[in-house]
Amino acid sequence: MSGCNLLWSERRKAAIKARAKILDAARSWFNRHNYIEVHGPVLIPSIGHHPNTFEVEYFDKKACLTQGLQPYAGVFASNFGRVYTIAPVFRAEKATTHRHLTEYWRIEAAISHSDLDTIMRVQEQLVSYICKSLSKEAQKELDILQCDAERLGRIRPPFRRLTYDTTIKTLQEDGFSVQWGSKLEWEHEKHLSLKFNQPFFISEFPVDIETYFLQSNPTKPELSLSVDLLAPEGYGEISTGGKPTIRKEELLRKMKEEEIGQAERKWYLDLREMGSLPYSGFAIGVERFAQWICELEHIKEAFAFPRSMDGIYP
Amino acid sequence: MSGCNLLWSERRKAAIKARAKILDAARSWFNRHNYIEVHGPVLIPSIGHHPNTFEVEYFDKKACLTQGLQPYAGVFASNFGRVYTIAPVFRAEKATTHRHLTEYWRIEAAISHSDLDTIMRVQEQLVSYICKSLSKEAQKELDILQCDAERLGRIRPPFRRLTYDTTIKTLQEDGFSVQWGSKLEWEHEKHLSLKFNQPFFISEFPVDIETYFLQSNPTKPELSLSVDLLAPEGYGEISTGGKPTIRKEELLRKMKEEEIGQAERKWYLDLREMGSLPYSGFAIGVERFAQWICELEHIKEAFAFPRSMDGIYP
Repeated sequence: MSGCNLLWSERRKAAIKARAKILDAARSWFNRHNYIEVHGPVLIPSIGHHPNTFEVEYFDKKACLTQGLQPYAGVFASNFGRVYTIAPVFRAEKATTHRHLTEYWRIEAAISHSDLDTIMRVQEQLVSYICKSLSKEAQKELDILQCDAERLGRIRPPFRRLTYDTTIKTLQEDGFSVQWGSKLEWEHEKHLSLKFNQPFFISEFPVDIETYFLQSNPTKPELSLSVDLLAPEGYGEISTGGKPTIRKEELLRKMKEEEIGQAERKWYLDLREMGSLPYSGFAIGVERFAQWICELEHIKEAFAFPRSMDGIYP
Repeated sequence: MSGCNLLWSERRKAAIKARAKILDAARSWFNRHNYIEVHGPVLIPSIGHHPNTFEVEYFDKKACLTQGLQPYAGVFASNFGRVYTIAPVFRAEKATTHRHLTEYWRIEAAISHSDLDTIMRVQEQLVSYICKSLSKEAQKELDILQCDAERLGRIRPPFRRLTYDTTIKTLQEDGFSVQWGSKLEWEHEKHLSLKFNQPFFISEFPVDIETYFLQSNPTKPELSLSVDLLAPEGYGEISTGGKPTIRKEELLRKMKEEEIGQAERKWYLDLREMGSLPYSGFAIGVERFAQWICELEHIKEAFAFPRSMDGIYP
């Protein structure tokens, strides 16, 4: 064995180093703001057959791979107030775009007794801090990646706050045939994202296109207490968040509407009993965030051994 | 839903906070010593049916859950020199002891152009730094856990360095019927561990009881370049490490001896071609380490939602 045939390019190494600096800056921000670092489990109880979930043979049973801290976040937030995690998550989504990995890392946080306004403020501070930190601490890497460190230095709060309602109107005005109630497609995200040079929020997506566990807006029950953060410059969504409901009847009703079996989610309902104070939380996709920060063409550049629908090798 | 029925005990919260401080101190040490933070994949190619490995349905194929950074560590070390990772790993071991989880986190490091002496020096510095940091920064948590912070303040390099050979002799002198060539059982580990009030190393285990990928000692080919770190006070092994071989013929010979199919490990052999400079590495089990630091009776106390052979809930 000749020992050293295939060393990585300076570009590849710079992307991995920049990703490390993003994580380091994130932890530094959380530490300064007295968040407790927690780790939820990767192996979670089976949720029955679900197209986006990987199944694991767990001795003589089935388990699933986590899609995020969310099922456990409320328990942590109830006990510690403010928590964060940086950990891998898994999505069996059949997507082969420049923005999809089946295994990726997330920066997640949960804050008890908080609402959408809080998690927007936290994210604009956190993201601005990370960008500023990278503009100073990762100049060498950003140079190698031929991207503009100064643009990151200019990211600062407050970020623009759009609602889903106004977003749909904007898209219609700009000539898209999108209707109220439909999901934002990549072409919509990209179009909006190209309008801005700062990250921006879109909040209160319709209940029908959001995940079942989010609370509805008390005064507009057709809207969910949800908020995404989008990167500018055409990079699109980098974070998703919201305020899960702690009202069991609301949860059960939404599960029924989405035909989610109560038996399969008993573990989830039991978790809600384990100290679910009201809380809000968000999850930033590390590799999508790095893709924007480092202006990477493909998300695979942001992870050393990326996994996608194409397969696992090596 | 009443919101807040089952908040955790102060003890449970203290253990989770102490674990977070261990990780924080570890990262701080690595950052000060210019290690690059990396993440290997959790989903790895199938290694065929293996009793300690969890299998995942990966679209129409099979994949496995990682047991550690090792397959990828050499590639990272070749490219960056010094790297570390803090990430979850998985072992389908059928064990229900007070020291076994099926899902646990590891602090792993790999250093190019290094040998056993280097990884022992690194670990004694790293572990002492973490202990000292906890003795100062986690006094409140250690008080709640009713464990002695001062004993952690006294942990300092150098740690005692035993070899497997002298360890077997010591055990025989102490009345154990263990023979050279056999694995150290928990009763042996515990006995040795109770003799010390500082962590200690045991190095150069026989090739026949070690993993196939480690290099043999050039002058004593029956011994592998392996080293474990054991905690004192009866807590036993907290880390494992060694110097993997970069000689393809040695690797192929050992795979053959252990009846490991080359076809199933083609991905592993291919990784060896991706920049395998000589390196050594080690892996500290976070929850075992926390168990010792915090004097926890059961390893389950060191993880908020522990997974074991008993099952996954919630």
